[in-house]
Amino acid sequence: MSFRSGRHFLHIPGPSNVPDRILRAIDRPTIDHRGPEFAELVLGVLPGLRELIGTSGPVFLFAASGSGAQEAALVNTLSAGDTILVIHNGFFATVWQDTARKLGLNVEILDLPWETGVDSNRVAERLSQDAEGEIKAVLVVHNETSSGVTNNVHDVRLVLDQLRHPALLLVDTVSSLGSIPVEHEKWGVDVTVSSSQKGMMLPPGLAIQAVSSRALAAADSATLPRAYWDWKSHLDSNETGFFPSTPATNLIYGLGEAITMFREEGLEQVYRRHEHLAEATRAAVRGWGLEVFCQSSQHYSPVLTAVTLPEGFDSDVIRDLILDRFDLSLGTGLGKLKGRVFRIGHLGSLNALMLAGALCGIEMGLQLAGVPIHTEGVQAALKVLRSRFELVEE
Amino acid sequence: MSFRSGRHFLHIPGPSNVPDRILRAIDRPTIDHRGPEFAELVLGVLPGLRELIGTSGPVFLFAASGSGAQEAALVNTLSAGDTILVIHNGFFATVWQDTARKLGLNVEILDLPWETGVDSNRVAERLSQDAEGEIKAVLVVHNETSSGVTNNVHDVRLVLDQLRHPALLLVDTVSSLGSIPVEHEKWGVDVTVSSSQKGMMLPPGLAIQAVSSRALAAADSATLPRAYWDWKSHLDSNETGFFPSTPATNLIYGLGEAITMFREEGLEQVYRRHEHLAEATRAAVRGWGLEVFCQSSQHYSPVLTAVTLPEGFDSDVIRDLILDRFDLSLGTGLGKLKGRVFRIGHLGSLNALMLAGALCGIEMGLQLAGVPIHTEGVQAALKVLRSRFELVEE
Amino acid sequence: MSFRSGRHFLHIPGPSNVPDRILRAIDRPTIDHRGPEFAELVLGVLPGLRELIGTSGPVFLFAASGSGAQEAALVNTLSAGDTILVIHNGFFATVWQDTARKLGLNVEILDLPWETGVDSNRVAERLSQDAEGEIKAVLVVHNETSSGVTNNVHDVRLVLDQLRHPALLLVDTVSSLGSIPVEHEKWGVDVTVSSSQKGMMLPPGLAIQAVSSRALAAADSATLPRAYWDWKSHLDSNETGFFPSTPATNLIYGLGEAITMFREEGLEQVYRRHEHLAEATRAAVRGWGLEVFCQSSQHYSPVLTAVTLPEGFDSDVIRDLILDRFDLSLGTGLGKLKGRVFRIGHLGSLNALMLAGALCGIEMGLQLAGVPIHTEGVQAALKVLRSRFELVEE
Amino acid sequence: MSFRSGRHFLHIPGPSNVPDRILRAIDRPTIDHRGPEFAELVLGVLPGLRELIGTSGPVFLFAASGSGAQEAALVNTLSAGDTILVIHNGFFATVWQDTARKLGLNVEILDLPWETGVDSNRVAERLSQDAEGEIKAVLVVHNETSSGVTNNVHDVRLVLDQLRHPALLLVDTVSSLGSIPVEHEKWGVDVTVSSSQKGMMLPPGLAIQAVSSRALAAADSATLPRAYWDWKSHLDSNETGFFPSTPATNLIYGLGEAITMFREEGLEQVYRRHEHLAEATRAAVRGWGLEVFCQSSQHYSPVLTAVTLPEGFDSDVIRDLILDRFDLSLGTGLGKLKGRVFRIGHLGSLNALMLAGALCGIEMGLQLAGVPIHTEGVQAALKVLRSRFELVEE
Repeated sequence: MSFRSGRHFLHIPGPSNVPDRILRAIDRPTIDHRGPEFAELVLGVLPGLRELIGTSGPVFLFAASGSGAQEAALVNTLSAGDTILVIHNGFFATVWQDTARKLGLNVEILDLPWETGVDSNRVAERLSQDAEGEIKAVLVVHNETSSGVTNNVHDVRLVLDQLRHPALLLVDTVSSLGSIPVEHEKWGVDVTVSSSQKGMMLPPGLAIQAVSSRALAAADSATLPRAYWDWKSHLDSNETGFFPSTPATNLIYGLGEAITMFREEGLEQVYRRHEHLAEATRAAVRGWGLEVFCQSSQHYSPVLTAVTLPEGFDSDVIRDLILDRFDLSLGTGLGKLKGRVFRIGHLGSLNALMLAGALCGIEMGLQLAGVPIHTEGVQAALKVLRSRFELVEE
Repeated sequence: MSFRSGRHFLHIPGPSNVPDRILRAIDRPTIDHRGPEFAELVLGVLPGLRELIGTSGPVFLFAASGSGAQEAALVNTLSAGDTILVIHNGFFATVWQDTARKLGLNVEILDLPWETGVDSNRVAERLSQDAEGEIKAVLVVHNETSSGVTNNVHDVRLVLDQLRHPALLLVDTVSSLGSIPVEHEKWGVDVTVSSSQKGMMLPPGLAIQAVSSRALAAADSATLPRAYWDWKSHLDSNETGFFPSTPATNLIYGLGEAITMFREEGLEQVYRRHEHLAEATRAAVRGWGLEVFCQSSQHYSPVLTAVTLPEGFDSDVIRDLILDRFDLSLGTGLGKLKGRVFRIGHLGSLNALMLAGALCGIEMGLQLAGVPIHTEGVQAALKVLRSRFELVEE
Repeated sequence: MSFRSGRHFLHIPGPSNVPDRILRAIDRPTIDHRGPEFAELVLGVLPGLRELIGTSGPVFLFAASGSGAQEAALVNTLSAGDTILVIHNGFFATVWQDTARKLGLNVEILDLPWETGVDSNRVAERLSQDAEGEIKAVLVVHNETSSGVTNNVHDVRLVLDQLRHPALLLVDTVSSLGSIPVEHEKWGVDVTVSSSQKGMMLPPGLAIQAVSSRALAAADSATLPRAYWDWKSHLDSNETGFFPSTPATNLIYGLGEAITMFREEGLEQVYRRHEHLAEATRAAVRGWGLEVFCQSSQHYSPVLTAVTLPEGFDSDVIRDLILDRFDLSLGTGLGKLKGRVFRIGHLGSLNALMLAGALCGIEMGLQLAGVPIHTEGVQAALKVLRSRFELVEE
Repeated sequence: MSFRSGRHFLHIPGPSNVPDRILRAIDRPTIDHRGPEFAELVLGVLPGLRELIGTSGPVFLFAASGSGAQEAALVNTLSAGDTILVIHNGFFATVWQDTARKLGLNVEILDLPWETGVDSNRVAERLSQDAEGEIKAVLVVHNETSSGVTNNVHDVRLVLDQLRHPALLLVDTVSSLGSIPVEHEKWGVDVTVSSSQKGMMLPPGLAIQAVSSRALAAADSATLPRAYWDWKSHLDSNETGFFPSTPATNLIYGLGEAITMFREEGLEQVYRRHEHLAEATRAAVRGWGLEVFCQSSQHYSPVLTAVTLPEGFDSDVIRDLILDRFDLSLGTGLGKLKGRVFRIGHLGSLNALMLAGALCGIEMGLQLAGVPIHTEGVQAALKVLRSRFELVEE
């Protein structure tokens, strides 16, 4: 039976809820991407994007999804047969290494548990064996959208520095940028890969990339074939506010509005808000007597929480039921987690009551599905959400 | 401290949440209101509106708010000095009688308790004393937005019929139409007064009016001055899809979309949905240990619930706090209820999780404000919301 | 055969083309009209509106069309049986006096030729006979949308002043405000009546009114019944950013955007632009060998041009043909001009090429309809449009 | 001096004017691209797209611009070092071969004059020398956006068939699809490459691709590295309405609306309309005494017209002047035509009066720039535009 009135509750971990202001910005007539008005738009947007990524260097925008950004990072810096080390503690690392393999790279996987953040000792151990510098790049996913684990990217850089290992550090921030602090330069990242449809609050279709001068230098000798993703042509164009091929103009309108919104709320506040919403979500999970998939409190993701179900329940059946009854979309279990977990997105444009509504839907759905839970999840979440304001009062 | 990200929770009892589909319909270029495309639009919209109001007779649209519709009902049917009986069990009856007084009518008020629906015996008692038929019209508000009480309009008609009293029956359905069944013809209403911004899911600015043949006949002898509100000029124009003066074209676009949405969901389902959401809201109020202002279960409003606060708390202070902390708007106490109650709107385009989110915000806000409540309101509401789907399962 | 692709050319003299920016502003969620965000909106909009009307006094907004504003001006300042003098040189004066009659006023018409602006000597002549001051108000339409004639409002004030006649001066600026300078205070107007859908670039549904302190004083003794239109209740509310009844919130969003757009372009430039577009239109009419209905060059309207057809042609047949073939809407002949003229709107959000496209459509349509014209209209218009830029070059 | 009111006239040959209906469709909340509602959307859109391209085989959508679609066609069907023959009679063939070179293909260029369509004899001549079948693919641009020349694609297929040459036929329809008939299957095309922002009336950001079974078979042995562009992963996903990576959901909303609009107008009518508008444009060019760049009447493009300027004039100076004075964007001269031609786009959502307005702007702009023209261009265009309706009358 359908109950379709009012708003859909979109709580997959991306695309996130696109705010009305951004949808309305996108809903403007497309203009000449070779004209002065467009250049003004781009030159206005890029500085804000740099600030968000924490870089003073080049930032590129492609008409593409996040997978395109992953590909662009590889083809611009590497050559066929190059060895790369993929730090693998979640499904999106799998996706990235699949791409790398398809492109003809020699992929070595550092298989780590999905339930916690990257152990930098394990990274150090492996890299210290690579005295020859065979490993040309280390790939790590900042926030694993599959598991709700946020990795400490800076630690990986420290390992590389300590070992004086020359590998490039490529980081996927697709689900973190805009909701969790990203510090391209401070963390010594060489390529930051991201996209529009998660913390950036936009529809999908815009791939984002920031690159270090080392990465730019690597591009000179990298021989993987590239045309669409080629940084060089962007580099020349962007300085004047243009693009080598037709850009996704209307999404760039939206990006401008997103940056305005980040500035209005203040980035510090945006990040605190996500910490707070995430904490409330975990409280709900525990209130239900269920388990947060991430086992390490210092790696809890501020953008999504994966919830482990008791044996005997299929998370997809429950997700379908919740979608059907409450018009609430949750994330499926990916890869080896299929059927075992569901994921609650709490990223992007979200506030306490939107999250509270979603948690209510999950609590009811779990009960309707016969999962043996305590009905104390919502209460526990409200306690957290409320606490924020009590503190403020003092 | 402000926490403004994500969606506002609009739970005043109107304007209600305007669905995206309707906003997008309104966001279309204005056309010539004397051209064929406009006529087609209007001739497509009016039948759906008739169906919603339960009439086969004329329905008028004015560019105006609901107060305009109240005024139009009076000036078209009455003459200066005419006596009208206002059945008064809430603030919007007060508003209507103020209008009537300003227009020079002799207003007699039948003062009834606000906590319950109209007692038709009291109406009968008064009308039976009017053997001369001095009372030219009886005014009743179908759903009292101030108190959360739904009056039984048909009962008033039965009283008039039984007494063979010739007074016209004028009914305000501003906050009921589209969320509670309205039966203009079955109930023997002479003028149904309504507007766009509540159950109809539109922005404010469109006044709606349905009239009986008796009301039309009354217009022939009524001498209150009228021009903008004059039915006659509408009557002639509307048949061909036009209006005597420039209509609110873009709101009529939205009205077309609203009618499409009502049809898609099914009116029966729309009404059941509101019954259900209202029941959940009352469960929450009781779960908090607070009192639903309406004391009579058969008159509970499906569109809003007024909540009585314990002595010593000012509802406006609490409303401000909830708005500030949770971006949730609630209705103020009106007239003699100022400061004593707050009102929760659950009308228009709304679903279970939107309501659940709002109830969470109220529960947290009441706690932050120091109101001594049990934190069992949300749980109680979820139990009701869930139950609907359990039944469905069987 | 229909040819419906691309944009409609809307050249009735209102509603005018609503710019995308304004439509998008209207396409925002409706908010609580009793909340702080709404108050901020209103308090931001009113000063810009005052500036546009040229007043430092109160400005009122009603959810209504322009006819509502005409009615409001009368019921707030006059009493039943009062005599008013309607300066009648066009159809919209007819409409206003109809309203006045319906409201029970004693309407005296000063019948003047439609082909030219008001002759103030004729007004002086009549008023000088009214030594007793029987005439309580003089009504004049600033820009006659029916004929393309702009009246000199200030001249009428000078006549009243010279004769020390106490009548109020009520002026309809429905089709001038926003496209032709309006000077409420400098011209000594008592009530300025306007609406949203013409020079203001909004959809219809918002009535606008500015009043002098004399008009406000008159309201104290005026006895025409009024409720919806009552200034007093607005006066109190507006100071705090609120309204006595539910306002047309979304149109007020649009009004805010319109005022921003006026400021960006600069009012001087807006008015010059319309002068220029009007001159080009008249050049086209003469290029076709047809006649501009307005015979007096000092009264040519900057917002529309009425074109007289040769005997034997019905303007409505030609308008239908042009709409059908070229998706271009023109204004019909109103009142006694029905069938004899068509009207070209060139008001609101319009530029040289939009007008040029429309004039091309008219030239082709006239030829297809067999009207004996010279095909030199478009060329003549382009010469004018171009000249503006030649001058600039020097 | 700027004259920025009203609509921009966008007459570059793409992006074209995005209709309001499509912008509004895009302005809808992004949904879960793994959910049932999304699948329904995609499964509803693909058949319409197949019909438009003239194929019963697979059609792929990428979040990318047209350059991405060009790249996808190559990497899926070819291997490093493969020889391809680029039929080169315009700038976009240059772009495509640049991409091919960057990807490591051995590009042979068949250099043909830009002023006319591809001479299939020249193609036959070259291919007949390739008895060994060294040439793996023949690339041709259907409509050359740089020159206003439409090539006969079918002729190239006939040459291949006659010679029994096994090369794949890859065709760029970026600027033709949706405005000029494309017959993927009838013409024996192996890969049809297109994108959203021209005849398809959408903003940029969606790359479109149709492939033959031969092309699919070629993909099995093609070894160019590919991941983002890999057809195989799309092939599996699309059947169920999904995508291998996050799709450009909101543009797909717009694509659905575009297809609805094509169906409403009728494809035959859409194509006739563009023929007609193009003919009017060429008439204008000749009326000005200027030259249409395309010298061959059977290859005139229905989507744009390149205009050659007399010696001594720089087309970019004139374009800037026209943009500045009349808010009209024209296409620049590309590659070797830089400064020598300007291009008038008349594709996508366009009607007679929009084009007429643009031609008026060009006529005025050429005069202001001092180009020695006859002012008979607009008149000549109107004669053509009008003629269509005279014929209809009979």
